[in-house]
Amino acid sequence: MMKTLQVSLADRSYPIYIGDGLLAQAELLEKHIKGTEVLVVTNTTIAPLYLEKVLESLSVYNCRSVILPDGEQFKNLEVLNQIFDALLEAKFSRKVTLIALGGGVIGDMTGFAAASYQRGVPFIQIPTTLLSQVDSSVGGKTAVNHALGKNMIGAFYQPQCVIADTLTLNTLEDSQLASGLAEVIKYGLINDADFFTWLENNMSALLARDQVLLAEAIERSCQDKADIVAQDELEQGVRALLNLGHTFGHAIETGMGYGNFLHGEGVAVGMLMAADLSCRMGWMTEDQVERIKRLLIAAKLPTTVPEGMTAEQFMSLMSVDKKVQDGQIRLVLMKGIGQAVISDDYSKASLADTLADFQS
Amino acid sequence: MMKTLQVSLADRSYPIYIGDGLLAQAELLEKHIKGTEVLVVTNTTIAPLYLEKVLESLSVYNCRSVILPDGEQFKNLEVLNQIFDALLEAKFSRKVTLIALGGGVIGDMTGFAAASYQRGVPFIQIPTTLLSQVDSSVGGKTAVNHALGKNMIGAFYQPQCVIADTLTLNTLEDSQLASGLAEVIKYGLINDADFFTWLENNMSALLARDQVLLAEAIERSCQDKADIVAQDELEQGVRALLNLGHTFGHAIETGMGYGNFLHGEGVAVGMLMAADLSCRMGWMTEDQVERIKRLLIAAKLPTTVPEGMTAEQFMSLMSVDKKVQDGQIRLVLMKGIGQAVISDDYSKASLADTLADFQS
Repeated sequence: MMKTLQVSLADRSYPIYIGDGLLAQAELLEKHIKGTEVLVVTNTTIAPLYLEKVLESLSVYNCRSVILPDGEQFKNLEVLNQIFDALLEAKFSRKVTLIALGGGVIGDMTGFAAASYQRGVPFIQIPTTLLSQVDSSVGGKTAVNHALGKNMIGAFYQPQCVIADTLTLNTLEDSQLASGLAEVIKYGLINDADFFTWLENNMSALLARDQVLLAEAIERSCQDKADIVAQDELEQGVRALLNLGHTFGHAIETGMGYGNFLHGEGVAVGMLMAADLSCRMGWMTEDQVERIKRLLIAAKLPTTVPEGMTAEQFMSLMSVDKKVQDGQIRLVLMKGIGQAVISDDYSKASLADTLADFQS
Repeated sequence: MMKTLQVSLADRSYPIYIGDGLLAQAELLEKHIKGTEVLVVTNTTIAPLYLEKVLESLSVYNCRSVILPDGEQFKNLEVLNQIFDALLEAKFSRKVTLIALGGGVIGDMTGFAAASYQRGVPFIQIPTTLLSQVDSSVGGKTAVNHALGKNMIGAFYQPQCVIADTLTLNTLEDSQLASGLAEVIKYGLINDADFFTWLENNMSALLARDQVLLAEAIERSCQDKADIVAQDELEQGVRALLNLGHTFGHAIETGMGYGNFLHGEGVAVGMLMAADLSCRMGWMTEDQVERIKRLLIAAKLPTTVPEGMTAEQFMSLMSVDKKVQDGQIRLVLMKGIGQAVISDDYSKASLADTLADFQS
């Protein structure tokens, strides 16, 4: 089974292949590699599971690999430089193709390395987590973190193709699967109420890693995201909707130290905080907030802020987030399930109430 | 006196202002700054000379500055991160404008920081050396070095405008002025034989820092470069002509350790090596090679390879240069003055002879 979804971005358009067992299909890779040089970038968790299989598919190329430490805390300029070391030690030219084999961190770092090496070389994404299959697959956002803020250094850069093999989800830890489901739920909340209902009905099967339903959820998520990105590639407007839950979530991730709180976990709490604030503003009902909370719990996601985060810390961390415009924190809120809005006309008192209420 | 030259690159077009005393003209900056936040990036040499004057012109903005160490050896990811530190400590948003105040190193690093900060913010170039006024002003190449190769990490990214104040050339060391003249001579050699002759006639006045002639040389150089860049912004073809002298020159710079041999000095020797190889191939006359050598000497530029560089070292360093295609070193050679060509059909034996001949 293989689904193909086309992301339409003029001369930067590319296909996403979704299905079980795609890693073994060498011809998918060959179709999108132009030169003879290939560098596979992966991490210490994924390498023992899938690197050999991918290298087998690449046996006709002059192929090297580099294995980075695993975790958000290593998504920085220093570890990024290990990719450049590998490229230069191999004396790879501007015709090299980079392959990102791993989750969102590997995808973001490999993408930024590809955007920057010799001012830009092609790359292919093989996301091996649900989060990266539904999120970083679409939209071309690449980046590394800075000690003072997440994803602060990066580029918009599109891959040649994305290969999402649902079989790789079988080796995913439960918490990582849940983290991916947070982003899946996000698409329902933004503009796809039917999908939200579908998720309410199918959450237990998804957690049981039903391959067909997972592929369906990935395809629908990528399609929802692609529709938004196609309207606004460089995030001048509507694309900011995709940040639902992220301004709160990034603050939690940064405040707890990278790697201690999963991205999707932060987003889950963040979406519920956005719902809570939207409810205080009279924009959504308590019943709707309750539905969101129930679905997050069903997906094994957290719904409370970790201990030790204060309201002051939230405000300080949120004010360096990229979503700040001229000093006013712009948030993504909701006027119902499936109706996210970008807003800076919420009341500051209500925001303070939400922050206070979510403290453990 | 102010000349304005438009660099035409579709929606990334921008003006270059050339003249004496432009630093004092606040309205030039104001015209090209959109938000309220500004970060000036400069170095320890330039800061005491011009930073205060520039900050005066920016008094209406929320303006910070960061002062980097001076020199090619500091053009790396680690020092680049100091710019991100400054941006994040100031909590500057995606609407910040970066201003590069300094030579090519400052321009390249600030440009790459602007390309990468929050995935892209605007920047303005105020080049204070002849080299940066005629070279990095045009073309949008930004980068930092890697221990294994020069300019290996970067982006194509265009500024909002370039302000070239010829008065800043009065504080330039003689060797730095000469280094800039190497790039000026390069434009004559590539496709502007009349300009080469003009330089032969005016070199002593340029060395005496005649403001009117300097402005003329800068304008003509920028125009020659802009014509080539407009044809091929991303260096897929003809733009590579601008690398005349650079494959040899980069090898010298890297081999000697960044900062020990000026960029223009490397390019000067490299252009003469390219001329020597072209002559061995029968593509240019000994008289023409002699004219080039005389003009380089008149401009106080070196014409021999520094002691200690071997032919083997040259070959190894040149093979990691970006101009390598599928393992074959592609060079820019000449079929006469003003007729540079991109070539890989030179004889390897002749290249070996050139390398041997230039060893001290």
